[in-house]
Amino acid sequence: MGLPSLEGEGYKAAPIDGLPPAPAVILVGTQLGENIGTTARAMLNFGLHDLRLVRPKCGWPSIKALKACSGATEVLNAARLYQSVEEASADLRLVYATTARPRDLPKPVVTAVEAGRKLRDGMADGLAVGVLFGPERTGLSNDDLIHADAVLTVPLNPGYSSLNLAQAVLLIAYEWFQAGGPERPASSTAAARRPATKGELVGLLDHIAGELDQTGFFRTPERRQSMLKTMKVVIQRAGLREPDIHLLRGMIKALAEGDRRSR
Amino acid sequence: MGLPSLEGEGYKAAPIDGLPPAPAVILVGTQLGENIGTTARAMLNFGLHDLRLVRPKCGWPSIKALKACSGATEVLNAARLYQSVEEASADLRLVYATTARPRDLPKPVVTAVEAGRKLRDGMADGLAVGVLFGPERTGLSNDDLIHADAVLTVPLNPGYSSLNLAQAVLLIAYEWFQAGGPERPASSTAAARRPATKGELVGLLDHIAGELDQTGFFRTPERRQSMLKTMKVVIQRAGLREPDIHLLRGMIKALAEGDRRSR
Repeated sequence: MGLPSLEGEGYKAAPIDGLPPAPAVILVGTQLGENIGTTARAMLNFGLHDLRLVRPKCGWPSIKALKACSGATEVLNAARLYQSVEEASADLRLVYATTARPRDLPKPVVTAVEAGRKLRDGMADGLAVGVLFGPERTGLSNDDLIHADAVLTVPLNPGYSSLNLAQAVLLIAYEWFQAGGPERPASSTAAARRPATKGELVGLLDHIAGELDQTGFFRTPERRQSMLKTMKVVIQRAGLREPDIHLLRGMIKALAEGDRRSR
Repeated sequence: MGLPSLEGEGYKAAPIDGLPPAPAVILVGTQLGENIGTTARAMLNFGLHDLRLVRPKCGWPSIKALKACSGATEVLNAARLYQSVEEASADLRLVYATTARPRDLPKPVVTAVEAGRKLRDGMADGLAVGVLFGPERTGLSNDDLIHADAVLTVPLNPGYSSLNLAQAVLLIAYEWFQAGGPERPASSTAAARRPATKGELVGLLDHIAGELDQTGFFRTPERRQSMLKTMKVVIQRAGLREPDIHLLRGMIKALAEGDRRSR
């Protein structure tokens, strides 16, 4: 196993204290420091923190990366530098290589969804796992792809398939996070107010019908029946709460009393 | 329905020729032009092209957006400007609002995966659909959220949940694209049960407000504002169809004209 070649001071070894294990993100020959910064942010959004840089063309450390990371500095500070993909992936047992275009390689191809699940499964089996990302313009070389267990592609609009580096990282981090069965956010309707009783709904409908009867709105009994049936459906479906009923009846009363007052 | 307020020349109406229909992306009060550019790129990656800007704080057109869009200029050129969320969503029948934090709102909550599927389903039923994104720092206001059918949140690392605007757009566009798969047959009842457009809902609320104004029902501007806000929530939640709108407006007219006739 090749030891990481650390450049500069103050870089502590990953993983970051307190964060649970997560797949390594290996950026190869990255051209723009900004993209390393936005990658760190995308990683941390989904709990990834093991960033490995193979010969970044932008140099390292990078002020541009720091400026672009939106507070995900802990990921940048813990990033490790390597001279080759071999070194960077030496401790990993399951590695996916991202490519924009399918290549003529004897490798299985997985989507981001599948990769997310398999990375989870691998980690559940105690494997160290990671994903390789190539330089912005050219992508990974075939030599680098050789180290991977499978090729990972994200299905894209065929007419415009230029995915930004950090966005590719984001989608794969997202799918890994999703595969973990994250807590579904509790619906805010749960804590909301009590639904109106069925009796209150009937009262509302009767109120509407009674006021409209006085205006001649329905014209015939058949129209009256059909329209009130429609209103019943609407009122039932509306998910009205108790205070809504009071407000609606107040409005109906105001419209109708305006009428009677002026007679 | 408010017409878009176009600024500058050369903006053609979306959708872009040759691209199949896709959900509208509505950016509200965006602060940084770069984020509009990277949003356009993220959209086009997954075949989205209907970009709507509500009062962008960065101004429009934006050189920074153009520089950041990585060739997705067609999306920027077709972007439309609006003065309000109401205007921008007037023609849409299914709208999700993205939020970083759960709010105490009586709205269903969906994840990006669910939203992707439901946007597909809605479009298969012939509905115009869209997703709202708020300003970078503050997110959508509760007033803007009122227009949405549901709140959309992306499950994130709770320790670091600052998702960049374009990355939020990317994840939702990705899930919509993922949900594509084989074409789903349109529901046969779809045409009869189309939800009302957001414009029709606004029209209904305006009608109610206008008639009640004449009765003195609201008494004070504060009460008026608060009651109309409640009504907005009720109307939004009611799942009203086109024929329901006609029936309700007919009833309101009958009550109110009864009033005026007899004066």
